[in-house]
Amino acid sequence: MKIALLGHGNVGKGVSYIVDKGNTSFTKQLEIKKILVKDESEAIDERMVFNIDDALDEDIDVVVECLGGIEFPFICISKALNMKKHVVTSNKKVMATYYDELVALAKKNDVNIIFEGSVGGGIPVMSNIRHTKRVDEISDFIGIFNGTTNFILDKMLKEGQCFQDVLAKAQKLGYAESDPSDDIDGHDVKYKCCLTGNMVWDTSLNLDDITTFGVRTVNQKDIDFGQKNQSTLKLVGRGIKKAGHAQVFVLPEYIANNDILAHVPSNLNCIVFKSDNLTAASYIGQGAGTFPTAHAVVQDIVSLLNNEDLKIKNDNKVYINNKEYSSKFYVRTKNLEYFKDYIHREIEAEVIITKPMDLYKLKKLIEKTDDKNMFVAGVSYD
Amino acid sequence: MKIALLGHGNVGKGVSYIVDKGNTSFTKQLEIKKILVKDESEAIDERMVFNIDDALDEDIDVVVECLGGIEFPFICISKALNMKKHVVTSNKKVMATYYDELVALAKKNDVNIIFEGSVGGGIPVMSNIRHTKRVDEISDFIGIFNGTTNFILDKMLKEGQCFQDVLAKAQKLGYAESDPSDDIDGHDVKYKCCLTGNMVWDTSLNLDDITTFGVRTVNQKDIDFGQKNQSTLKLVGRGIKKAGHAQVFVLPEYIANNDILAHVPSNLNCIVFKSDNLTAASYIGQGAGTFPTAHAVVQDIVSLLNNEDLKIKNDNKVYINNKEYSSKFYVRTKNLEYFKDYIHREIEAEVIITKPMDLYKLKKLIEKTDDKNMFVAGVSYD
Repeated sequence: MKIALLGHGNVGKGVSYIVDKGNTSFTKQLEIKKILVKDESEAIDERMVFNIDDALDEDIDVVVECLGGIEFPFICISKALNMKKHVVTSNKKVMATYYDELVALAKKNDVNIIFEGSVGGGIPVMSNIRHTKRVDEISDFIGIFNGTTNFILDKMLKEGQCFQDVLAKAQKLGYAESDPSDDIDGHDVKYKCCLTGNMVWDTSLNLDDITTFGVRTVNQKDIDFGQKNQSTLKLVGRGIKKAGHAQVFVLPEYIANNDILAHVPSNLNCIVFKSDNLTAASYIGQGAGTFPTAHAVVQDIVSLLNNEDLKIKNDNKVYINNKEYSSKFYVRTKNLEYFKDYIHREIEAEVIITKPMDLYKLKKLIEKTDDKNMFVAGVSYD
Repeated sequence: MKIALLGHGNVGKGVSYIVDKGNTSFTKQLEIKKILVKDESEAIDERMVFNIDDALDEDIDVVVECLGGIEFPFICISKALNMKKHVVTSNKKVMATYYDELVALAKKNDVNIIFEGSVGGGIPVMSNIRHTKRVDEISDFIGIFNGTTNFILDKMLKEGQCFQDVLAKAQKLGYAESDPSDDIDGHDVKYKCCLTGNMVWDTSLNLDDITTFGVRTVNQKDIDFGQKNQSTLKLVGRGIKKAGHAQVFVLPEYIANNDILAHVPSNLNCIVFKSDNLTAASYIGQGAGTFPTAHAVVQDIVSLLNNEDLKIKNDNKVYINNKEYSSKFYVRTKNLEYFKDYIHREIEAEVIITKPMDLYKLKKLIEKTDDKNMFVAGVSYD
């Protein structure tokens, strides 16, 4: 199988390493013919090209997109699909943003577009969704989808360091980008929940309907609250389906310590699927990094090599309705007066647990409160 | 695909429920034509037969063995393979005991024998081993393979109940057999480690070489020791490969609380694979029970339906050498004098931590000590 690899950053380098090495009977059958890089400065062998059209040779079977960004990858992937080449991508942003367009384009050209590496890094999320659904119906999912924020919350908990110090450490270790907004504001998890929901429910969720909270303002007091209440603060993404609609959101939550999610350490990811036969099936592993993500990308190529049925269905109508998700919330703000009608319990100055309310109501109150340092999190006990 | 189902106990009933219901496009293509039960008293519909030869009709494609036991299942499976029918079994004992014979018989008749349901219940252990190995080499595995003993240890820890009381509770809930020896003496885990090692390393391990310890004699003092040392007592099975030999054993171990294995609750299983690309991949789920195990069995049938490559390799020579595994051990016995030359640290009357020693040495000392109530466990810190 002949591959054009677009991008030679962290993931791209891992893909070329695994494929070039050819350690298994499957990877031996793969060959990288072209590698698209920015310019001469990035060229290290004769396969390097600097223009997408030079990468899409006639004899290429599969185009592997590891570029990052949205618009340029979208152009490249569209070209590849229109040239009837299969596409493998680890790019959650382009997939979640242009899901219907890309799935339709693949269908029209009778090729596949698959994206195992875009969710959960090395965790075989997509292949296990496909596998489980052969026999069972998955209703819900919940997971720790972002390693950077899990690393930050775990370090704050175990070593008592402040958010800014741990973030700097995560950046130094390569776990966080120089602009960490996507991670700490929850957008990375939003993209991943969108793709997970799409695959689990054979649908195409509206990305903008996924209510998203992050952990940018978390402090040691918020972490300690969990410890005092037999729970651990984690940033989770959830999808809960009821008939034709679903609740899909990204939210810091105090997870009870008798739940395995509370104990996922360091920068690991954990994704849990709920289904009729299996009750709950949990998968834990490296959610990012060169080799785990490259492994997932190469698995996709092998699935194409094996002629697996990888067609994506997106015609099941599922609407997000987060007004149906009701929870108590931990709220820390200096402007508590906006929450005065919704207090379930006062914890200390500037900190309350609210009465049960839906995410829409919560967002409205947060807007009114207008406190850039406020922190909110779901509380599922109390 | 036409199925003969052998056995209509817990797992068999689940298989016929899922297949008869035909909820998915795959399960719709399956049909159970015959069900072998003991006699008229177990017959509930016209598919029931009472003799293996009546079950193996010419038009049967796959024989699903959910009988339990060893010798009668071996006869039935051998017959089926010789009639060129694929075999799916959830029976770890017959597979681990007759691995080479059954794999050879399947090969000779150009059919497959597969056994997803025999290890980890609903956890897709075997399919994920096959999947991972397409791209990566798995070196080691570690896991909580037995739900009954995990339930017992977890209850003793969280509710302070004694071993006998929790065992009785587990029996009442259907988690433990009326004769619980296979579970509490570690043999159930031994069979599962054997099959896991076989699949991971393409080999055929000698079952008798797997050193096996259980938790029959554990008491509250042993559980408390873990809590005092930031660790949790779990019964684990391990496989560690080094070139052409491996360490494979079943042992209660104090698992450090920063390890996810320490937090696997209730009767769940957790199986972890270590490989080059993925570092560690962990799978957590229901390790037994009607629907999880039946789900795994039906997944195997769907894999046959999809004509996947399910051939088993067993020609890689891997010898078990547990003399190479060195650890400190927690030892509680009234006859500590036999360990007097091996004391690393005295914990209290009748309890010590040993100097590092191998499992073979440990077994010899245990034999000499001759104390039916003694308890030993691995200690990986201190």
